[in-house]
Parts: sequence; C-alpha cells; structure tokens
Amino acid sequence: MKPNSEEEEELVQGVGPWDECFEVAVQLALRAGQIIRKALTEEKHVSTKTSAADLVTETDHRVEDLIVSELRKRFPSHSRFIAEEATASGAKCVLTHSPTWIIDPIDGTCNFVHRFPTVAVSIGFAVHQELEFGVIHHCTEERLYTGRRGQGAFCNGQRLQVSRETDLAKALVLTEIGPKRDPDTLKVFLSNMERLLHAKAHGVRVIGSSTLALCYLASGAADAYYQFGLHCWDLAAATVIIREAGGIVIDTSGGPLDLMSCRVVAAGTREMAVLIAQALQTINYGRDDEK
Amino acid sequence: MKPNSEEEEELVQGVGPWDECFEVAVQLALRAGQIIRKALTEEKHVSTKTSAADLVTETDHRVEDLIVSELRKRFPSHSRFIAEEATASGAKCVLTHSPTWIIDPIDGTCNFVHRFPTVAVSIGFAVHQELEFGVIHHCTEERLYTGRRGQGAFCNGQRLQVSRETDLAKALVLTEIGPKRDPDTLKVFLSNMERLLHAKAHGVRVIGSSTLALCYLASGAADAYYQFGLHCWDLAAATVIIREAGGIVIDTSGGPLDLMSCRVVAAGTREMAVLIAQALQTINYGRDDEK
Repeated sequence: MKPNSEEEEELVQGVGPWDECFEVAVQLALRAGQIIRKALTEEKHVSTKTSAADLVTETDHRVEDLIVSELRKRFPSHSRFIAEEATASGAKCVLTHSPTWIIDPIDGTCNFVHRFPTVAVSIGFAVHQELEFGVIHHCTEERLYTGRRGQGAFCNGQRLQVSRETDLAKALVLTEIGPKRDPDTLKVFLSNMERLLHAKAHGVRVIGSSTLALCYLASGAADAYYQFGLHCWDLAAATVIIREAGGIVIDTSGGPLDLMSCRVVAAGTREMAVLIAQALQTINYGRDDEK
Repeated sequence: MKPNSEEEEELVQGVGPWDECFEVAVQLALRAGQIIRKALTEEKHVSTKTSAADLVTETDHRVEDLIVSELRKRFPSHSRFIAEEATASGAKCVLTHSPTWIIDPIDGTCNFVHRFPTVAVSIGFAVHQELEFGVIHHCTEERLYTGRRGQGAFCNGQRLQVSRETDLAKALVLTEIGPKRDPDTLKVFLSNMERLLHAKAHGVRVIGSSTLALCYLASGAADAYYQFGLHCWDLAAATVIIREAGGIVIDTSGGPLDLMSCRVVAAGTREMAVLIAQALQTINYGRDDEK
C-alpha cells in the first residue's frame, strides 16, 4: 500500500493512513442509522429488483446518496464507490487498486420493510484490493461493529472474539435464503440446510441480514455462516470484522474468499469453515463484477 | 371467573383481580433477565433432553426455581405450576380451573448456550383455563412485552399492534425448527418452508426463540408465525400478548388454539392465519398433557 503525500503527513503525526476515512465512516454509519430508525416508523414505498423478494425503498436510495455524497465531499480524490443501489441501476462493480468504498445502505431491506428489528448499514473500505476496515451499524439495537486491519474488531468498544468450536454437532449455523426463489434454487437452499441439520448442528438461524449474521459470528454468538447469493457490499465490511475477531472467511469451494463471487463460508475456526464448505451444494448466482 | 374474597376486596379498591400477580410476574421476569444476562458471560454446563438439539443448562433450572419459589411464597394459595424444566423431570402438564402459572425460564436455550442474543423469560397465567396475562422479557435487548386480557399489549410501555397484512405474497413469516431432527421430521419441516417460499412469502425467519418470534408478530414486525413442536410454556404468555395486540392464534388445523397440542399458527389477521394453516403439512409432536 503506497499512501499519498497527505496520508504520509498523517503517518508522521502518528496517525494511521486511513484513520480519517475510518472516523468519517463511523460518523456516516451513525447518521444513516438515525435516518433508518426514523424511517422505520413511517409508511414506505416498496419496489422490487431482481425478484419479488428483492426489495428496495426510498430510504435505501436516500441513505446511499447521503453516504456517497459525503464521502465524495470529504475525500475528493476517492472516485471508486461500489454501492448496492447504484449497482442495481447499472453501475459496474469493479475492485481496482484505488481506494474503494463498498456500501450497503440498508442490509436487511425486507426486514426494514416489515419493521423486523434486524437492519444494518455497512461501509467497507479497500485499497490495493485489500480490505482496510469495516463499519457496520445495527440500527435498531444501536450496536456499532468495527474492524480495522491489524487493529482488532469491536462492538460498541468491546473487543470481539469468534467461537473456537470445531465440532459441527455443537455448532449454531447462520444462513440466508438469498433472492432467487425459483423451485430449483429453493431445493438446493433447503437441501443445504437439511445436510447441516442431519450432521446434527445445534441449530440453523435465518435472521434476514447477512451483514448482521456475520457480525454475530464475529462476536462468537454463532459458529459458522454460509450463503449463496449475497454481494460484495454484504461481505466487505463484515470480512474485516470477522478476520480481526480471529475468524475465517473463505469461498464455499474451500478456497480463498473471492469478494465478487456471491458466495461465502465464514466460521470461528478453519476446521469448522471446511466442514461447512464440504457439506454444501453450490447455488450459482454469477459474479458481482460480471453483471 | 369467580374471584375469591381476597380478590373481591381488591376489586372494591378499584384494582383488577390479578393485578398483584401481574406485578409480581413483571418483577420476576426482570430479575430472571438479570440472572440470564450475567450467565451469558460465564461458562455453561450443557445437558441434552429429548434430542441432541434440545438443551438445558444450570441457569434454566436456577431461573425456574427462583420464579416458582417466589410465586409460591407470594401466592401460597396457588398450587398449579406448569414449568418447562419440572415437566422435563416428569411433572404432569395439566391445565385445571385453578390459577395456573405457566413458565419458560429460558426460551431459546440453544441461543443462550451460544450467546446468540435472542433469549427470553416467559411467564403466563391462566384461571379457569383462560389466559389472563403474559409477561415476556427479551433479556438481551431488555424489552419487556406484556399483555393482559382486555387491557392491551405493550413493549416497554408502548402499545403493540399486529400487522394487517392478508396477502401471503407480501408476508414475512417466522417459524422454528423444533427439537425432533429425524430425517422424516426434517423433510416435513423443510417442505413447509418450501411451500411458503413457493407461495412467494417475502421471507422466512428462524430466530431460535418461539416466544420472541411471537412477540415480534405481536409488534407487527412479522405477519405470521407457525410451529410444530413447541410447548404450552412457549405459547401461554405470548398468546395473550398477540390477542391483545389484535392478532389471531389458532391450531395448525385451522381450528381453535389448543394450548397443549404442541402446534400453532399465529398471524395479524384471520385471513393470513388460515392461508398459513392451509399451506402446512402436520408434524406430530403429541400433546403436552399426555406426556
């Protein structure tokens, strides 16, 4: 990573190269949370995207516009933004070497629409294709999850530590259904759940927010998470938080994570991640960078 | 309902017949919540009950003992208690006409074991086989749900109102896996989920606590809930809260609720409850009062 002169100056003063970016991300995630909490009490106009289960509201757009415009103002040299709603409108989803902000304005839009209290804002930041930090705000419970490369992961200031469980028969596993609801996709989704329950996992939970499920994993409240059909904006911030909490984030094939591959296994231990990956049948959602 | 002389005296003073019982239930649910929150930070000794997924800890026993012993002390004339762990140890589960306390010391024990932050204490109270009130404490989020027959339902003082949704294709549906994990039971569990997703329900959520799922339904955060394999202590308090929030609680056959039948459909509207009941294939868990 080669910081530019402005960032070098900050380093001289004993401040990390991306400290200001991190602080701004935290402030924006908190502001976004306020908007979302207020919107939860109001009537919503709901539209659909890729399927009848893939929802979007005015608040998704409003929050995304706020975050992106504020970031552009504060960091005029940053020109790379990957954000859920802009991508849905056709913007390309490409991770270059430039500083890149990866934003999900509302993770759990279906929950948001129903006022189900599991809704988050997610802001990730990558440089040279490496994730530097992640900020996730659980808006309804006012929990702020943060992770910075090499500096640990925290929730409201408390250090996070993943579970050390390696036995699938003692695991609590999280997953999400994904937006595709055609019969073949549903069959594989349910068959994957069946395999884990046959393997005697303590339980499977589906909470409606990939990002928050990954935060629960980071905090040790679950032992594994897997999903097909999530996106880089669901994964970016959470991946830093999990890794900094001591956890593993890999591809469902068992290989290294590919942020653009729309699939993931995360766990507290490598053993658990591999057990989950081995149990899964693939659902093909394509790639974020080929849409 | 015929109040005894003590209760008649209270009525003369303008106080409802079960006010003191309700107040004591609230205080005990809050005390229990403190114990559970503290225990969440400690190591746990976990045992299994009916299956490898049916867990119990020392805290379940400790909280149940506290609640029952305090209730016996405060209401020496009350001799009927239906409580989860006493029942697991062989106590009969019978609802007579006498005042009866129906207690789940920790709903979401699997969550509790994993520190997954969705755990509740549930205290219901019935007289003449009619549910009078319910008190449910979401321990980790410190939300207190209450409902009293004819007096509305509340969460931390805010009145609850169910969703008015009647269209399954716009519904968020909650369910739980249940303790039986044999291949045939799992097949029907997954097939029920598949039917609802085929019917284009917005989503299905599995949060690991029947009681809290029912509270979310009461608060309008979901449109329907169904389950096979829950017990009267999961249902008693929540049923009052849902009904007082304007919702419907029925049997999975579409007929009236049978508190002992280990199965339920709840919804914001009768139309939604009937649609869900019609979509479901039955899983037989027997009856609480025949175990």
